[in-house]
Amino acid sequence: MKKNKKTYFPEGFLIGGAASGMKKSGKDIGVIFCPGGFKAAAVFTKNRFAAAPVLISRKHLPDGRVLVANSKFANAATGARGFRDATETCAFAAGRFGVKADEVLVASTGVIGAFLPMAKIKKGIVSVEKTFAEKPVEPEDFADSVMTTDTYRKISSHGNFWACAKGSGMINPDMATFLCFILTDARVSSYPRMKKIFREAAGVFNRMSVDGEMSTNDSVFLLSSMKKTVSETKFKKDLTNVCNDIAAMIIDDGEGRTKVIEITVASANSASEAHHLADFLAASPLIKTAFNGESPNWGRILSRTGASGVSMNQKKVSVYICGVLVYRGAPVRFDEKALRELLRKKEVSFKVDLSVGRSECVFSTTDFSEDYIRINAGYLS
Amino acid sequence: MKKNKKTYFPEGFLIGGAASGMKKSGKDIGVIFCPGGFKAAAVFTKNRFAAAPVLISRKHLPDGRVLVANSKFANAATGARGFRDATETCAFAAGRFGVKADEVLVASTGVIGAFLPMAKIKKGIVSVEKTFAEKPVEPEDFADSVMTTDTYRKISSHGNFWACAKGSGMINPDMATFLCFILTDARVSSYPRMKKIFREAAGVFNRMSVDGEMSTNDSVFLLSSMKKTVSETKFKKDLTNVCNDIAAMIIDDGEGRTKVIEITVASANSASEAHHLADFLAASPLIKTAFNGESPNWGRILSRTGASGVSMNQKKVSVYICGVLVYRGAPVRFDEKALRELLRKKEVSFKVDLSVGRSECVFSTTDFSEDYIRINAGYLS
Repeated sequence: MKKNKKTYFPEGFLIGGAASGMKKSGKDIGVIFCPGGFKAAAVFTKNRFAAAPVLISRKHLPDGRVLVANSKFANAATGARGFRDATETCAFAAGRFGVKADEVLVASTGVIGAFLPMAKIKKGIVSVEKTFAEKPVEPEDFADSVMTTDTYRKISSHGNFWACAKGSGMINPDMATFLCFILTDARVSSYPRMKKIFREAAGVFNRMSVDGEMSTNDSVFLLSSMKKTVSETKFKKDLTNVCNDIAAMIIDDGEGRTKVIEITVASANSASEAHHLADFLAASPLIKTAFNGESPNWGRILSRTGASGVSMNQKKVSVYICGVLVYRGAPVRFDEKALRELLRKKEVSFKVDLSVGRSECVFSTTDFSEDYIRINAGYLS
Repeated sequence: MKKNKKTYFPEGFLIGGAASGMKKSGKDIGVIFCPGGFKAAAVFTKNRFAAAPVLISRKHLPDGRVLVANSKFANAATGARGFRDATETCAFAAGRFGVKADEVLVASTGVIGAFLPMAKIKKGIVSVEKTFAEKPVEPEDFADSVMTTDTYRKISSHGNFWACAKGSGMINPDMATFLCFILTDARVSSYPRMKKIFREAAGVFNRMSVDGEMSTNDSVFLLSSMKKTVSETKFKKDLTNVCNDIAAMIIDDGEGRTKVIEITVASANSASEAHHLADFLAASPLIKTAFNGESPNWGRILSRTGASGVSMNQKKVSVYICGVLVYRGAPVRFDEKALRELLRKKEVSFKVDLSVGRSECVFSTTDFSEDYIRINAGYLS
């Protein structure tokens, strides 16, 4: 995670952000414009109440020229009117930039159940469009426009890729939403290949959680201006690196986090069982509070494992905390004082070896702190 | 919940508790003795790391004469030695009371991964046995012997039934365990009928959660001295009442609770989907913190519902908070000030109507407070 490193910005894109007045202060609307057209791939929330912008963007893939993002209002649970508002946003942006409405993608984050203030949305799009005349490439302004309670701007670049994201900070305080925008000028042999590599790289976003909640707006976009042919190896390496950077920043900036916890499930029967257990362990309030308390409480890890329903060889299951073996079919003697020292670090880890197969999953999460409760028990108003 | 009401205690049982020195102070071992023999039914944790006493008691059902319970040590994750210790406890108690070893049931709660101090366990059994000579029926001493961080003693009685339980308080602070002991002198036509009625009544314990964790030691026992024939209707009514009382007390005394939240899932496709969604809603940190903050945050309820995977008619899903309709396919206008008043009460509720079927589940849970974190982030020492 290099927050201040000099970043590469891919060719073919105009990008910026503006304040439309939706937020009390600060930028709240961002636009990406690719006059030559982009190829896009995306992964979206699987929530049955996926927000209107998710439904629209899904329809508008894979070819486009414009992406409009806003914070403050999620346009989720807004029914037919919300769908019309998102459609109108596309039509308005299309008119301003001289493209077709189905060449516009949209992404929103913020309060659920409130309608988009369309006059402000339109005013914001015009404002960003005006900045393009003088300063066509202001990636940080775009990144700022999607931030909510993120405590720092999340940007990464590797090779021909640039990415920004907003993390799971609560919005007013509605729900944790993850939005990520990855731009590149690199192309590989075909769109299906690009999509496949993207889905693999974006898999890291399914191996992290702050509180196990899945929002109505979660979206990860990859937009390529297709200017430069690169090898699949390089494409994959750089894309994977930006995804990993962004995932690490999201966890690092998780609400109320005092620890970053790396969970490894090893020797599982299948990849899906390994992932299920890792996700289930990451959602355990007792494990998350134990790490908050810097306590080597392997009993909670073992109990949660036993409650998960995955296949295991109970007599051979091993548990490691910060690399220290603490259980192998029975409690193992360990130097508790030394382990407590390791648990005082910000970066901690534990591993469960199920001793039945060959699949593994590495997953990131945060602890649960009193701050998490304070942030999320706040009032809507 | 009548904590101090005059309780009936069933015929045929001797019961008491004693201090063996496992806890720093207070009773930590309890014994129930039924010289004429009891018929027992039980439901146990489904955790794959079920503790040794669970494994042994499961084998010793359904006929018995003695039950030994202890707090402070869970005898879980203790491997072969733990199994031998639980077996030895049965043999020792059998010797003292002149019964067979397989007529003894055992239950433990406390620290996981530590071995039972067998000398103290034996000393404790002898101490309780001695109290039987003078005071053969001291149900409150037994109830005290299984308490951990419960803030009050949990006892209920209806008709011919008496029950006590220990709730999900953390032990030193290891894990939340639920132990419940129901005694009766009532009998119905047959053991299979009794078992069936018991399993139905005990279903309420699967419709409650504090933090969604399932411990290695959770056990609910029904012991009947079979002295009095009663109608199935009465048996069922009284047994259901004691189970409901105990469930309500467990939730009421949930760690860090400031609210008791009743969740209703209505119009689900099947009983199992209704139960799955209720359980999933009850485990949501965002919903639990919203109620802690007394916030009418229906967006979190809707989003969690959408992430649950159950069947629903999205366009017709309704959400009610404290009886107030807040969403029906789209946000509904409601009197927010009046709803906020309702949310200030200790007993709150919400309901999700899926609009696809006829199944319903009513579930109880607690909110997540800063106290929950404080209690559970504490050190092992």
